[in-house]
Amino acid sequence: MISAIAPADAEAAEAAARRQAELAKPPGSLGRLETISIRLAGVTGRVKNTLGRCRVAVFAADNGVVKEGVAVTPQSVTLAQSVNMTKHMTGMSAIAAFFGNEVRVIDVGIDSQRTPEGILDRKIARGTGNIAEGPAMTREQALAAIAAGIEAADTAKAEGVDALGIGEMGIGNTTTSAAVLSALTGAPAEAVTGFGSGLTDDAFRKKTAVVERAVKLNAPDPGDPVGVLASVGGFDLAAMAGAYIGCAKNRIPAVADGFISVTAALAAVRLCPAAKDFIFLSHASKEAGCRLVYEQLGLTPMLALDMRLGEGSGCPLAFQIMRAACAAMNGMATFSEAAIDDGYLAEIRGKDF
Amino acid sequence: MISAIAPADAEAAEAAARRQAELAKPPGSLGRLETISIRLAGVTGRVKNTLGRCRVAVFAADNGVVKEGVAVTPQSVTLAQSVNMTKHMTGMSAIAAFFGNEVRVIDVGIDSQRTPEGILDRKIARGTGNIAEGPAMTREQALAAIAAGIEAADTAKAEGVDALGIGEMGIGNTTTSAAVLSALTGAPAEAVTGFGSGLTDDAFRKKTAVVERAVKLNAPDPGDPVGVLASVGGFDLAAMAGAYIGCAKNRIPAVADGFISVTAALAAVRLCPAAKDFIFLSHASKEAGCRLVYEQLGLTPMLALDMRLGEGSGCPLAFQIMRAACAAMNGMATFSEAAIDDGYLAEIRGKDF
Repeated sequence: MISAIAPADAEAAEAAARRQAELAKPPGSLGRLETISIRLAGVTGRVKNTLGRCRVAVFAADNGVVKEGVAVTPQSVTLAQSVNMTKHMTGMSAIAAFFGNEVRVIDVGIDSQRTPEGILDRKIARGTGNIAEGPAMTREQALAAIAAGIEAADTAKAEGVDALGIGEMGIGNTTTSAAVLSALTGAPAEAVTGFGSGLTDDAFRKKTAVVERAVKLNAPDPGDPVGVLASVGGFDLAAMAGAYIGCAKNRIPAVADGFISVTAALAAVRLCPAAKDFIFLSHASKEAGCRLVYEQLGLTPMLALDMRLGEGSGCPLAFQIMRAACAAMNGMATFSEAAIDDGYLAEIRGKDF
Repeated sequence: MISAIAPADAEAAEAAARRQAELAKPPGSLGRLETISIRLAGVTGRVKNTLGRCRVAVFAADNGVVKEGVAVTPQSVTLAQSVNMTKHMTGMSAIAAFFGNEVRVIDVGIDSQRTPEGILDRKIARGTGNIAEGPAMTREQALAAIAAGIEAADTAKAEGVDALGIGEMGIGNTTTSAAVLSALTGAPAEAVTGFGSGLTDDAFRKKTAVVERAVKLNAPDPGDPVGVLASVGGFDLAAMAGAYIGCAKNRIPAVADGFISVTAALAAVRLCPAAKDFIFLSHASKEAGCRLVYEQLGLTPMLALDMRLGEGSGCPLAFQIMRAACAAMNGMATFSEAAIDDGYLAEIRGKDF
């Protein structure tokens, strides 16, 4: 499946760049809106695009590593906020609902007996193992989580979704993300570990030590992203990586959120380099480690709003920016249409202007 | 009128900050969306706001200084693009129309005999004088332009507009903006002059020299913003300054765009310090001089998209970010509503979750 995924359509992207050059404005003056519209053309193969239906897919799972005291928030919040998302009561979902975006919550491993109503049941297990003591999951479980992510993109495509945001809910997942990033890049724990939802300095030191220990103990092969996700990742991260690959497969833009989401994107690109062309980074998160991921991906976020909520909260904002990019591409006159030529001016001057 | 303008409602802003602290998220994790919602509360006096109706007011005028060869674009483009804006064919207006925003073009000094259909006629003269040779306009004309700007804000308020973007169309107005900024702050011409719509290095040097000459020749008193606008500004800049003051008077948020728009905002704040509380900076323009204005205003743009189109093109994007800030404030559950407390969890656990 992965080897069948082609990179973006370079011809369509070039045609979009030519169109941008014809639009009545100083060259490059719409900045990132221009590059976004050109990248979107590469994704869809069409110069003019509209993002009519946008969706945020939220992969929810618990992480055994919370036993180490790496999170300020109780583990039960994974379940509570997953339910609240379906009611548009959380940060991301309130914003998404306002803009008419869909939210789909997928339980890939919440620590609960059942999957609550309104949430898709793809539960692999009731949370992962504690990465500070052993692997998070088996390789088979990692592949099942990746498959759940690919399925979410397949479903989105089948249902006519034009862009898919990749979000998460999983207490402890900034710790697993830091471990995955450290394992994939060789960066030391202190370079990739952040303050998450607001740790004390003591808890932060403990978290950094846990990340270091997890990577040392499990010692995953950086060249085997599935192995990295299985040993020091989480069901959420693995499913998100699958969703990025699924978007590339279905040729729809995948919109990343903060630290967890971009780390999953990096794992996806390591598995499937062509997936990079389909990834759009929403906002520059304040969480440590993000800058490293942006460098590794070679992509730049479109927003800098000092956000660090997660959930996928940058995605509905990015959808609006991407829609604006499409609106400019689709709605602006070219230089000749804009009549910034003598004919038109002569005409309106002729009417005594 | 100006002395009657009160600053933002500190009590409402404090109440909004308290509400933000109660919402179910790590404190501060929505970053700029939180500060925007708190500032909006100060503007309107209400904790919960909606920006239902948003409008971009575009002040269009010609500038005599184009005779110096400071612009790459022919002067006739001011008229042509002003007309195109009413048809949503320009960058800003295509994006604004897509999001359902209104666009109002106000002719405060286009060099045409008549004001084209669809544009409001507040023409003061057919363009300004050449600031490199003398003052742009008389003090009376500057006051008339400021009054036209205030009127646009009064009209917006009367028509139920919830936020007003302040845009412009006027070939040569990055030159007049640089001169106004230099005159207001004492900054040398080379620190405030930019490449506008894409000058050659030679033309850029000429433009810088023109800015320096204009400020030296007219020597406006930095403590007299009206005098600065009259001597080295433009009808567009003066009207925009009036619009910012008008928004403060009417207690609606004024959304600034790029270099010209923020320079007008600075002139407005020099005239009416309370107006600052009502100004929201949309995007960080690439034009030189902008950083100085942001420092002088003590405000930070919410977007960094490498844009430098002008027109008010950052405003429809900022409206969406501000709407998202409102959606989070209005739609998110508080910690107790989110049931991140034992009662709710016991309840859902009691149902075998």
